[in-house]
Amino acid sequence: MRVSGYAASSATSALTPFSFERRKSRPDDVVIDILFCGVCHTDLHLARNHGSFTIYPIVPGHEIIGTVRQVGEKVGRFKAGDMVGVGCMVDSCQHCQPCQTGWEQDCTEGATFTYNSTDRHDGAVTYGGYSDSIVVRDKFVVSIPAGLDPAGAAPLLCAGITTWSPLHRWKVGPGSRVAVIGLGGLGHMALKLAKARGASVTLFTRSGGKEKDAFRLGADHVVLSSDPAHMTAVAGRYDLIIDTVPYDHDINPYMPTLALEGVLVLVGYMGPLSTPVNAGGVVRGRRAISGSFIGGVGETQQMLDFCGQHGIVSDVEVIPIQQINQAYERMLKSDVKYRFVIDMASLKS
Amino acid sequence: MRVSGYAASSATSALTPFSFERRKSRPDDVVIDILFCGVCHTDLHLARNHGSFTIYPIVPGHEIIGTVRQVGEKVGRFKAGDMVGVGCMVDSCQHCQPCQTGWEQDCTEGATFTYNSTDRHDGAVTYGGYSDSIVVRDKFVVSIPAGLDPAGAAPLLCAGITTWSPLHRWKVGPGSRVAVIGLGGLGHMALKLAKARGASVTLFTRSGGKEKDAFRLGADHVVLSSDPAHMTAVAGRYDLIIDTVPYDHDINPYMPTLALEGVLVLVGYMGPLSTPVNAGGVVRGRRAISGSFIGGVGETQQMLDFCGQHGIVSDVEVIPIQQINQAYERMLKSDVKYRFVIDMASLKS
Repeated sequence: MRVSGYAASSATSALTPFSFERRKSRPDDVVIDILFCGVCHTDLHLARNHGSFTIYPIVPGHEIIGTVRQVGEKVGRFKAGDMVGVGCMVDSCQHCQPCQTGWEQDCTEGATFTYNSTDRHDGAVTYGGYSDSIVVRDKFVVSIPAGLDPAGAAPLLCAGITTWSPLHRWKVGPGSRVAVIGLGGLGHMALKLAKARGASVTLFTRSGGKEKDAFRLGADHVVLSSDPAHMTAVAGRYDLIIDTVPYDHDINPYMPTLALEGVLVLVGYMGPLSTPVNAGGVVRGRRAISGSFIGGVGETQQMLDFCGQHGIVSDVEVIPIQQINQAYERMLKSDVKYRFVIDMASLKS
Repeated sequence: MRVSGYAASSATSALTPFSFERRKSRPDDVVIDILFCGVCHTDLHLARNHGSFTIYPIVPGHEIIGTVRQVGEKVGRFKAGDMVGVGCMVDSCQHCQPCQTGWEQDCTEGATFTYNSTDRHDGAVTYGGYSDSIVVRDKFVVSIPAGLDPAGAAPLLCAGITTWSPLHRWKVGPGSRVAVIGLGGLGHMALKLAKARGASVTLFTRSGGKEKDAFRLGADHVVLSSDPAHMTAVAGRYDLIIDTVPYDHDINPYMPTLALEGVLVLVGYMGPLSTPVNAGGVVRGRRAISGSFIGGVGETQQMLDFCGQHGIVSDVEVIPIQQINQAYERMLKSDVKYRFVIDMASLKS
């Protein structure tokens, strides 16, 4: 099955048109015609080999929306024409404790990621959503509720579930006080989802000028985290802080703003926190620093259903795939409100 | 009310005999004749002004066991002759949310600590348990179950409750897998309490030779944390790690040994963790780094009742108060199994 897409061939190459073979559809596979694919920071990091584990050529993309072209004989949940989504994973072992619990992202044997990963059956490298179609195991395909704009729904598959998962785990609802650090792809989804769940929502920002957007997206309050007086005024306030900052940063100033047993959850950064973490920040008030990594497939469907009921999609700027390299440069300058989404029809132009 | 005790008069002074006035008993006070007082690392830190907030002269001691001499007219819970204990706190505001929840140690207005603190009624500096008697608000006095050795019970008031509180919060019981880092005053209590609650218990130690004692105290397993092969063998194993290390240390090697949603709880150190904490250690597996600070008064009584039922006391070396300065030097070399306790009868000799 011949597929058109865009790939980078080295850490310093621009993404350019790339033609490749998708695997033959297995009995439990869904073949999807891709309509839209969101552009995540991870795409850029892996295209440029920032983690030193990129396999070239790389076809990024794990915020995939499309329609079902055909299904394998063992697939009962989908039929041709259904609007579906695929997120960061396309397979996992299905029998370890995390998989059994619905946390395929933490599969003990290692989940198969949507791109730059190894197919657990044929050993081939996986290629992502910057392409016209994809073949995915049915258990890793989710339904897109009717009525959601398909372009706006694409980022729900990564930015949406990544921020939903901690809101769900810590049972955020009416009466909860939630703060969000950072207003980007993840942060703007955290504001929308926390608000829709009924929480009182605060945005922490280091610079002014974001109030209007923050309030529109669901924030009830905006706190200037660079101003110690603002921070003191919210001491002991938040049950949950969702920290979406995607680079090394100092988490200590946020800890005293947590309520007793409050939790700061890192969702955007996996590296070392070079500013020494103050143990007193968790010892006093029985607070915690935790983290969250995407979310499980069942949880993703639950989040999509919730978004369908509440009419929630991402704020997106739709681009043709020919602009992907400029989009990467703009992402590096945070010049996007709040997620680029590729219109895959542009592949044919 | 004239009292005999031992005090340090400066950061470089030895502790020497000190005579001082206790306040007049208020209607809700209990006057206690002190029998035994445990020796906590905090006593040494404050006597030597390691935190730069010591008020001299300082009378340390917050692991106090004694008998009630008299009670104020509003005190209904105790009567003369009762065996009682006093821990790290002697008062708090009683009306803030933490106090109402039973977490007086996190009193929003600041708890009154047993020594080196300020009495919230008369503004005087508080003096601790290295003395023949003490006057304490009844709400901060706990009952010592019959049958517990009073010398061995003294360390329960700090080392006991500090390790009990996280075991209680995270609902450790049969089926739980708990690991303890460090085998000192806190660590040996953590082993005993976790085992008595029914958990499978592991001691992490950096050096060999502690197996025999660890198994006697309740450990089922001993893992050499300095050996990467040992650490890999226990990857993903523990629901809860109680980290009793009282100085700056690297927590990263322990994080992968936590199960999904497992928690490492710092209980012995409040300063900066100078080795950069790896965010990936909490993001993957939804793990957490938390902390715990002593415990509430009600929780302390609950712990004491549990210890009474299970016959649990601390392993102590009883000393006369005249040996307190040598005891501090030995503590610095970890030369104690596992807690010094002062026999206060020695004050009269």
